[in-house]
Parts: sequence; C-alpha cells; structure tokens
Amino acid sequence: MIRFECDYLEGAHPKIMEALMSTNFEQHCGYSEDDICTEARALIKKAVQNENADVHFLVGGTQANLTVIASALRAHQGALCADTGHIAVHETGAVEATGHKAITLPSENGKINAKQIASYVDEHFGDASFEHMVQPGMVYISHPTEFGTLYTLKELTEISETCKQKGLYLFVDGARLGYGLMTPGTDVTLSDLARLTDVFYIGGTKVGALFGEAVVIMNPALKRDFRYLIKQKGGMLAKGRLLGVQFKTLFTDNLYFEISKHAIDLSEKIRNCLIEKNIPFLVPSPTNQLFPVIENKALEKLKEKYTFSTWAKVDDNHTAIRICTSWATKEENVDMLIRDLEAM
Amino acid sequence: MIRFECDYLEGAHPKIMEALMSTNFEQHCGYSEDDICTEARALIKKAVQNENADVHFLVGGTQANLTVIASALRAHQGALCADTGHIAVHETGAVEATGHKAITLPSENGKINAKQIASYVDEHFGDASFEHMVQPGMVYISHPTEFGTLYTLKELTEISETCKQKGLYLFVDGARLGYGLMTPGTDVTLSDLARLTDVFYIGGTKVGALFGEAVVIMNPALKRDFRYLIKQKGGMLAKGRLLGVQFKTLFTDNLYFEISKHAIDLSEKIRNCLIEKNIPFLVPSPTNQLFPVIENKALEKLKEKYTFSTWAKVDDNHTAIRICTSWATKEENVDMLIRDLEAM
Amino acid sequence: MIRFECDYLEGAHPKIMEALMSTNFEQHCGYSEDDICTEARALIKKAVQNENADVHFLVGGTQANLTVIASALRAHQGALCADTGHIAVHETGAVEATGHKAITLPSENGKINAKQIASYVDEHFGDASFEHMVQPGMVYISHPTEFGTLYTLKELTEISETCKQKGLYLFVDGARLGYGLMTPGTDVTLSDLARLTDVFYIGGTKVGALFGEAVVIMNPALKRDFRYLIKQKGGMLAKGRLLGVQFKTLFTDNLYFEISKHAIDLSEKIRNCLIEKNIPFLVPSPTNQLFPVIENKALEKLKEKYTFSTWAKVDDNHTAIRICTSWATKEENVDMLIRDLEAM
Amino acid sequence: MIRFECDYLEGAHPKIMEALMSTNFEQHCGYSEDDICTEARALIKKAVQNENADVHFLVGGTQANLTVIASALRAHQGALCADTGHIAVHETGAVEATGHKAITLPSENGKINAKQIASYVDEHFGDASFEHMVQPGMVYISHPTEFGTLYTLKELTEISETCKQKGLYLFVDGARLGYGLMTPGTDVTLSDLARLTDVFYIGGTKVGALFGEAVVIMNPALKRDFRYLIKQKGGMLAKGRLLGVQFKTLFTDNLYFEISKHAIDLSEKIRNCLIEKNIPFLVPSPTNQLFPVIENKALEKLKEKYTFSTWAKVDDNHTAIRICTSWATKEENVDMLIRDLEAM
Repeated sequence: MIRFECDYLEGAHPKIMEALMSTNFEQHCGYSEDDICTEARALIKKAVQNENADVHFLVGGTQANLTVIASALRAHQGALCADTGHIAVHETGAVEATGHKAITLPSENGKINAKQIASYVDEHFGDASFEHMVQPGMVYISHPTEFGTLYTLKELTEISETCKQKGLYLFVDGARLGYGLMTPGTDVTLSDLARLTDVFYIGGTKVGALFGEAVVIMNPALKRDFRYLIKQKGGMLAKGRLLGVQFKTLFTDNLYFEISKHAIDLSEKIRNCLIEKNIPFLVPSPTNQLFPVIENKALEKLKEKYTFSTWAKVDDNHTAIRICTSWATKEENVDMLIRDLEAM
Repeated sequence: MIRFECDYLEGAHPKIMEALMSTNFEQHCGYSEDDICTEARALIKKAVQNENADVHFLVGGTQANLTVIASALRAHQGALCADTGHIAVHETGAVEATGHKAITLPSENGKINAKQIASYVDEHFGDASFEHMVQPGMVYISHPTEFGTLYTLKELTEISETCKQKGLYLFVDGARLGYGLMTPGTDVTLSDLARLTDVFYIGGTKVGALFGEAVVIMNPALKRDFRYLIKQKGGMLAKGRLLGVQFKTLFTDNLYFEISKHAIDLSEKIRNCLIEKNIPFLVPSPTNQLFPVIENKALEKLKEKYTFSTWAKVDDNHTAIRICTSWATKEENVDMLIRDLEAM
Repeated sequence: MIRFECDYLEGAHPKIMEALMSTNFEQHCGYSEDDICTEARALIKKAVQNENADVHFLVGGTQANLTVIASALRAHQGALCADTGHIAVHETGAVEATGHKAITLPSENGKINAKQIASYVDEHFGDASFEHMVQPGMVYISHPTEFGTLYTLKELTEISETCKQKGLYLFVDGARLGYGLMTPGTDVTLSDLARLTDVFYIGGTKVGALFGEAVVIMNPALKRDFRYLIKQKGGMLAKGRLLGVQFKTLFTDNLYFEISKHAIDLSEKIRNCLIEKNIPFLVPSPTNQLFPVIENKALEKLKEKYTFSTWAKVDDNHTAIRICTSWATKEENVDMLIRDLEAM
Repeated sequence: MIRFECDYLEGAHPKIMEALMSTNFEQHCGYSEDDICTEARALIKKAVQNENADVHFLVGGTQANLTVIASALRAHQGALCADTGHIAVHETGAVEATGHKAITLPSENGKINAKQIASYVDEHFGDASFEHMVQPGMVYISHPTEFGTLYTLKELTEISETCKQKGLYLFVDGARLGYGLMTPGTDVTLSDLARLTDVFYIGGTKVGALFGEAVVIMNPALKRDFRYLIKQKGGMLAKGRLLGVQFKTLFTDNLYFEISKHAIDLSEKIRNCLIEKNIPFLVPSPTNQLFPVIENKALEKLKEKYTFSTWAKVDDNHTAIRICTSWATKEENVDMLIRDLEAM
C-alpha cells in the first residue's frame, strides 16, 4: 500500500537521523539548555532575520498551540480563529481545557480576514453587556491553513495591523510552514512572519523531523516565563537536545526549504494531472495538500493501491479526499499515482 | 567533563537507534495506531503478565502524570502524594493546572505509607465540613521514589489494599521503574505493579529510550476514553510509531531489564566506595541515584572533572549531591570517579 | 422611567421579604444544612412529584450552569447546546473556564432538536479521528429559551430519549421556568422535567426571589458529591437559609406559579397590542419576553418614557427590542405602554 | 439552643433589612451598575481614604478569593499563603480549580511573615530548576486570620514591602475585617490596608450583611477587566443592587464599625471569664473568635445548652472549641454562658 493520507507517515530526513546517531552518546544537560539547542536557536534567529526572537522547541502542534495560548491570555480571554481552525476542531478542546474559548469566525477555504476580526472586536466592545462575553485576546491563524491555502502578504499585513490596532496578539500556527513558504507564487517569507506576528511556530513534525515545532516569540510581553508554561503543560522534553539536533539540521544548508520544495514539486505534478482530467477540487489549495472530488467508483479502485484521507461526502457519487505529499514522498510513487489517475 | 548529574544525559540505546533507522522510511499511520505500537503493546502486556492491561505511549513523565490524573479524577478530587513527590514539587503545578490539588503527606525518604493514607481519608470524611475540603480521589507514589528509595512488596500491598478499601485509585509513577525492578533485594516485580495498582507507567526516557513512557491501565474505569485525554493534553504524538519502535525494542530480549541492571551494578560500585570512605548519605537509596554528603572542599575538586546535581546544603562545610548512573554510564568513567573518590 | 428591559429589575415578592424579616434573628447553621432548607427541599420534591430528587440551592444562573456541567462531565467532554444558548454566548466562557467546551448547534428561535443531537453524536463517533475532537457528554437546553420560546412535550421527550440512547446527560436551564410553565398552550409540566431530564434548575432570580436557583438532580450518578462542587465553584452560600426561606415561600400556596402567571398575562396584553398594530416579531415567543421589531423613530419616542433591551438592528430603520414582563410588573405600567403603542 | 459556633448564624442587621424593604420595588438595572451600588462604592472609597480604589461587590468569600486570584495570576503562578489559610484548607481546592496552586508556608497562630516570604522567593529563583516549580506570584493573608489573630501594622508593612521588592501582589482576605479593625490594641486601619495591599476585601457576610464582600482593588494592573472575571466565575449577581444596598447601609453612620465593636466587646467578656477560670487557649486570639481548651466533661454539660465548633482534640480529656460572637450576638446570651462557665 502506498500512502498519501497525511504528511507524517515516515520517520525523519536521513540527515536528521545521521545527526541523532552521531550525537547519541554525547552527554548533554536536559531541558533544551544544551549547546546544540543554542546553536539551533541561533540558526532560526538568523533564518527569521531577527536577533530578538525567542526560540523554544516543543514536541508537537497541539502542545505548542495550548502552551502559547495559555501563556498569552488572561483568564477571561479567548482566541479568535477560523471555524475550521485546528484549535477549534481537532485538538479535543485542548485550548478550552486551559480555560480559554476558541471563538470561531466563518472562514473561506480555511482563511479569515482583517475585516472580520475588526468587526468582531468592535461588536464585542460595542455591546452593552460585553463583560458577559469572552473577550477576544488573540487571533490564531494557520499558514498554510488546514485546507492547504495560503494568506497573501497583503492579507497577513492587514490582519497584523488590525491586531495591533485592536490590542490582540497574532499567533500563526505553522505546522506546515515550510510547504507554505516554498509554494510558487507566495509572497510571504519567514522574516515577514517574524515581523508581522507576536508569536508563530515553524513546524518540524510534518517537514522532515521525527517530531518538533520551533515556537518563535517576537513580542517581549510573551517571552516572559514561557519556559514555566512549557514545563507545566508537559512539553519540556528531558532530552531537549533531540529537538536541538533536529532543528539545527533542518536549518543548516537550507535543508528545511529544500525538502519542503520537494513536496511542493510533487503535489504540483498531481494537481496538474487532476486538472487535466477535469477533476474538481473542494478547495483550491496551492500547497502540499490536495482536496480533489473523486467519483466513488474510481476511488474504490484507487484505494486498492493507495491510502488517502476521506474529507467529505460531496454527493451520493462523489467524495472529497485529501492527497498529501511530503518531504519523504517518492517521485516514483507519485508517477505511479498519476498513471493510475490518467487511466481512470 | 564527565556527567553524573542525571540519568538522561545521552540519547538512546544503540538497539533503539538501529530500530529507528531501519524503520525510518516505512510508512505508518499516525497517533500510535500502527502495527509497531500494537506489537509493543503486546510485549508489555506479556511483561506485566496481564492480557487485560491497556497500554498507551506518552512522550514524557509530567505529561503522563497530568494526563492520568486529569483522566481519573472528578473536579473536586485531589491526588494524595508524598510532600517530595514529583507532581507536588517539580512539575510547575501541572496537576493543579488541570484543576486538581496535589495533597501532600509527610514522607520519609520519599515514601508514604498505608497508615497515613487511611488516616487522611478517615479524617477527611470524619470532618463535619468535609465538603469544604478537596476530596482525596487517588494516591500517587513513585517507585523508585524521587530519592531513589523503593517500596517493599508488603508496603505496596498495604497501600493497594488501603486504596481499595477507601475508594481511591492507586497510580505509580515509574519514571525510573527499570532501575527499581533490577535493584538487588527488591521483591517487587512488574506483574506485582499490574496486580496492585489501577494505573502505572514504565519509564523509557530515563531507561534507554530517547523519550517515552508506557502508561499501563489496569482498572477498567480508567481505560475509557483515555486517548481523548492524551490528545487534549498535547501528548498524542503524530508519529506514534516512534514510541512503538522504542518500547518494542526495550521489551524484546529483556533489553529493558539488562540495561537497567547495568546502571544498578555501576551505582553499587560507587556506593560501596563511598561507604568504605565513610561518606554519609542523605538518604539510603539502593537504586541508581546516590545522595552522598560531601565535604565542600573535596566537592570543588571533583567538580573540575565531573558534574553532579547539588541536592541540599547540609552544613557550612558539607553538601548533599546526587550522583546518577544510567543504562548509558560507562564503566571506565565510574572507575575513574571511584579512583578520584578514593584519592580524596 | 418605566423599565421593561429585563425581568430582574425589582427585589423580591413581598411574601419573601416578609419571610426573610420574620426569620431574620433565628439562628441557623450554615451552608443550606438548616431546617428551612430541608422544608424547601421537601416542597420542591413534592412539586416535581419525585421523592428521589436531590435539591440544591445556588445563588445564580451562571453559577448553576458551570457547577452542574463541571460536576457532570469528564475532562474531554463538552456540552452540546444551541448557538444562542446562554452558556455559549453570555457567560464569559464560564463553562470553558472549567475546561469544557460549549459545542454549538444551529438553532431555530433558540431551540435545537433531537435529530440534530443524534446526528452530531453519530458523526462524532463515526469520524476516524473522533478522539481528536471534544466528546459530546451532555445536552444543555433552556426552557424557556433565551428567545422566550418553549419546547413541546413531544420535542422534549424526543431529546430526552435521544440523550439516553446516545449516552448523554440532559440538563435544562430553567432560569425562567415559571414563566414557561404558566404559558397558555404549553404541555410541559414540572414533573415532566423531572421525568425527562438528568438535572434541571428552577429559576428564582427572575421569578420572585431576590436571587437563587434550585438545582434538581434526578440521575443518581450526578448526585454524588455535588456539594463539593458547589463549594469549589464559590456557590456555597454561608447563610444558606436565605435560599431556603425564599424557595419555601415560592413553593408554598402555589406562589411560584401564580406570580409567573401574572407576568404571562401582562405579556399577553402587550403581545396582542403589538399584533393588532401589525408590528412584526423577531421571534414568535409565547412567554414573558417579547421581541418586536420597531421603527426607529417610534422607538426613540418610546424610550423617553420606557427602557427596553436593544436586541438587534434589523435594517436601517428598524430595531428588534426586548420587552420583558415579570412577577413584579405593574398592570398600570403595561396599560400605559399599550396606550402609547396604540398612539404610535 | 443558643449558638456560638460561627458568626453567620443570623440574617442581617435590621437597618439592612429595612433598606432592602424600602428599596424593594424600585427598578434598578442589573449587575451592580445601578445608582445604589455607585453610592456604596463612593462610601467605601471614602472609608478607605482613596479615591482611586476600584470597588466590586461579590456574594461570598470563596468566590472573592478565587476570582481575585484567577484574575491576578498568570497560568504558571501560585499564591503563597499560610498552611492554615482559608484558600489552602477550606475551599475545596477552589483556587486549584482555576489552575493555580496554593503554596503553603508554615504558620504561627495563622500568621506568616515577611522573612518567610522573602526566603521562599529567593530560594525559588535561586534554584537551578526554578522553571520546574510553581512561581510565587502573590501573597494571600487573612486579617483577622482563620485563628482570630491579627497582623500588626509593622508586620503588615514588612510583608507589603517584601511583596513589592519581590514582585508579588499582596491580597488580604478580610472576611472578618470589621472585627479585626475594632479590636482594642490593633494599629491597622482600613486606609492602611488600602495603602499596603494590591487588593483586599471587606467582609459583609460575617459582619452584618445577609451576604456580600466588597473587593477593593488598589493596583491599577489588577483593575483591568475585573468584571469579566466576576461574570466568568459565577459571581455577577443579577440584582447587584442588593449588594449595593447592604454596603451602603454598612458604610453609613459607621454602622460597620459599631456592630463590629459589639462583637468584640462581647468576646472580650467571654475571654476574661475564661482567663479568670484559668482555662487555656489553643491560640491567643484577640478578636471575635475564641479557642479555649475545655475539659471534655464540662464541654458535654455546656453542649446541652450551647453550640460551639469543635476545633481540635487536644488530649484524651480536653478539646479545643471555637466560640464566636458577632454583630448579632445577644448580650444576655453571653452573660448566661459566662454564668455557666463560672459555675463549672
């Protein structure tokens, strides 16, 4: 079976495995206070082009989300997000479990916009009984979104400005950030994210690492005591050096970007094939996640050989599926899939 | 510098690294629902000699503690523990952050006993205003304790019986379980833990793994929906197979026990040397953590070559330190330390 | 200024004030363990026609909601409710602050139905990644709803059966229950609520009391340790007898029902006048809350003499307002309002 | 039976009942935004001699404690308090339920001191693994304490200075503040509390009101958004005017102080009688709570006529009890008790 259902099917990039092997018997102090983590942090600061960034390594995305949000918000505040946002739908209420509401806004292809945010905040404070409602304290967006779509630099800048104007933090979930950054046509760079957000994270789990997310804190108010929060929420890895090794490797010699490009190149091949075949898409996603709407009979045939995620029943005869490529996807498997699609 | 300050200084046992390498490009579904995890679970069920055990893999100890406790207790209940218990002192209030109080009992060398537990519960329910106090809902103990000491089978049995009698769950934190099981003279086995507790965990992070703890749930009431809790608390590893690979390796061919014995053999060597030198101990710990009280001047000398944890200032001239051995400790380093201790 | 904006503008019914006065210097033990509370509880058990009901007195509605929900749900569970439900929109995230998500369903005139609930639960457990989502553990509905509408006995029975079938608790917020029960045409009685729900509460604050809600627990699983939760959530009134006195008075000689009827009779008068004037309603509410859509110019005029709640801007020239009657509304004021409406 | 077990046995002072009666049919907007609350706030600002104080009315003490603490602390912080502090022992973990640990310090007669606080903070930040422990963020003390003892102005000033120096908020629980302020020999005034604390509350429940505590916030950082917290924690009374009426009455014509003095005068009478009889005290409390150690046989005799709280078993033949006077205690009952004590 060849798997395309998600982008965390394999282990790690061989260079990471090598680095883990070669440092395996080095002795390092715990909790990411070791030299390798220091080096990795320096590389990331350089990549985001900001020396004042605080970089923390966490194990996973839900952990990163709940830790950042619990650290940033006061008890009566919530996080504004798309109604399709990961914190709203796929984290078992992790944010609510820290006491904060994920306040959802209607989204289009996974995205929300500055105007919606401004309206929500204005309506909140304009209501006579505003104290009876959760105060919006932060905006959470994903880039790429859960539907593989991307914000433009203009959209991101507007959201950032609105957040500053309305007194909200801006937090960007970058679980698949590498893929977003390497998508042709995007005008958003790593340093834009550092410039426009209060905090964001660079996903490793889905982009070449065994696991790990690098949380980058830009706003000084959010830097204070963040390590306490990591520990309290169970995210302080004893052998923190493992995260250091992985991110050091990813941010050496552009590896993070190169392997992201690999995934994007392969998804482009599949996308083109689907377009040629006139197969419609649930969402026009330019990144490594594709959401074609497939005829059920054809899908049954494909499933004998491949795995996909089932995304939505579109009608009695059609199903939207998710096809993911990743840093680890083999071109030969993509070519085989394309041949099978063409033969349909 | 040769480090003895803790038992998580190195990466993982070479067999684990090999297994990670050899499975690296296998495609596995996420969240520990893969075949390797299934195999690992089967091996652990066999090791604890109970087919009905539910086995879940978590990344770290604090995460395991807070997830188990949040899953088991109702909102008004707390966990009884030693005043030196890890959840009470070294987890940044992780348990309180889930809403539950760590209720501390005075401890002796890290241990509490059945009588204390029974008294506490009786006093609680005997008080006219019992509803004004946190209800004890669980007993949390560590085996080995944070001071390297061990419960005897008799002590553990009494605690277990008291818990059953008083309606409390018994949860054993086994972050260093392997070392406890392989300590000469202990009469507690893995299957005893399965028989006497409602839930416990088998520590991997400190015993040969890169990271990972295997939570073993025995009480059916605690099994229900535990995976929801893992996800909510940020502990659901996307590439769960990594935990499966590690625990499968540890529980194949007795690896977990053999490497634990290695640490115990080496700590025994150091302990004997310290005893011969008439160096007193803060705590009489039989496992891989030693707490000798060293004269400050000698300590300064040793610190030029070795790292230890500073545990407590005993008097103006003496300091209690912690010396740890582990699965990775090199015998040559222990021998060197012993020579230097003897030369003091 | 004559106020119609809500149903908690005055103090308490004179009989309650009298009872408070006449018992003022009696000495009673605290925390609702006194004799008056016992009598009040007996009267309520009689009124709900079930001797096995557990009755607890809380001070307010938000407090009652958060305490019941925190007591009933496990950490990974949430409460299904209308998207207009009080817990979802007007309690500053009180439920989320206890760690639980309010999961919203689209509502019609404030109501949800059994089919929606069943579908939601089926979809939840049918999803491959159900553990990544909050588990529905309870249904919360308001009767009357926040829009003054009522469930029919058939609707309530279907919801109750669906809850039982799907393993959810059913919790009814009865902040305005008296008004609902006395509305002409309703076929839902107090004993129906006791029979069909796991827990509900009988609102006092809005129906004649200074403050206070009587939580009635029917499901034995929810009875256990509820007083601990009341205390923990800050709802254990030291002078609990105050709640006892109030509910004893309300449930003596049908007072609760009579004063509710008074409000309903007066709202009926206003409703009829509005209908005659062909003024449309935002929601067809049969109880003590009316939501007419008024022309802005006329509204400005009315506001010189009366207060209403502004509910929604309907278009540039029309605004939906809320007019409330209550146990304390004076008929002469209603008549004056009607004259002014007719003169418009 | 004549009751002396606590200071919340009766309703409210007749002047409060009168004021509630005379305003009962006035129409006031909800949630303490009415004119009476405004007047009450003004009177309290005057009493604490600080125009910049923010005054909020809450229903009860546990509610006030958990709301203030949840509002003030970040997620990783805890509240330092006496091991006998109300939040630590008698609130069913209300503070922990908001995610924060009550960090206990050994106390003497219910009191802690500046030196202890300074040491704790210094040790915390001096520890290499400080991020693994709850950060002290606030000091909570009760004045009078749970044992009826009082801080001197010097002690309070030292605690206040230490808190400022160490970056902790100082919060004083004044559930019985009136009694403390009117105790002969105390040099602490209401304006001292306003000057030395960040936030404190003036207890009404135990000092003449039916219920209610006036939270006085001095530190601007703590003022922001406090009403959101009140609502979220279930403490926003719909008919907030009830609290306004009560505190307006208490702070008109010195009523709060006069009725407090009444309790103190009567407790002084009982204390003197006990001293004359050479009956020892568990704690030397100068306020309205007395903790005499009574011979069991004599106690049995007294209990035929009076109720007390049982505080502690001192030895096989002696029990420490609590005798409380209050604003409502009748002098004739005190005289009777004295006669019966003398006759023992």
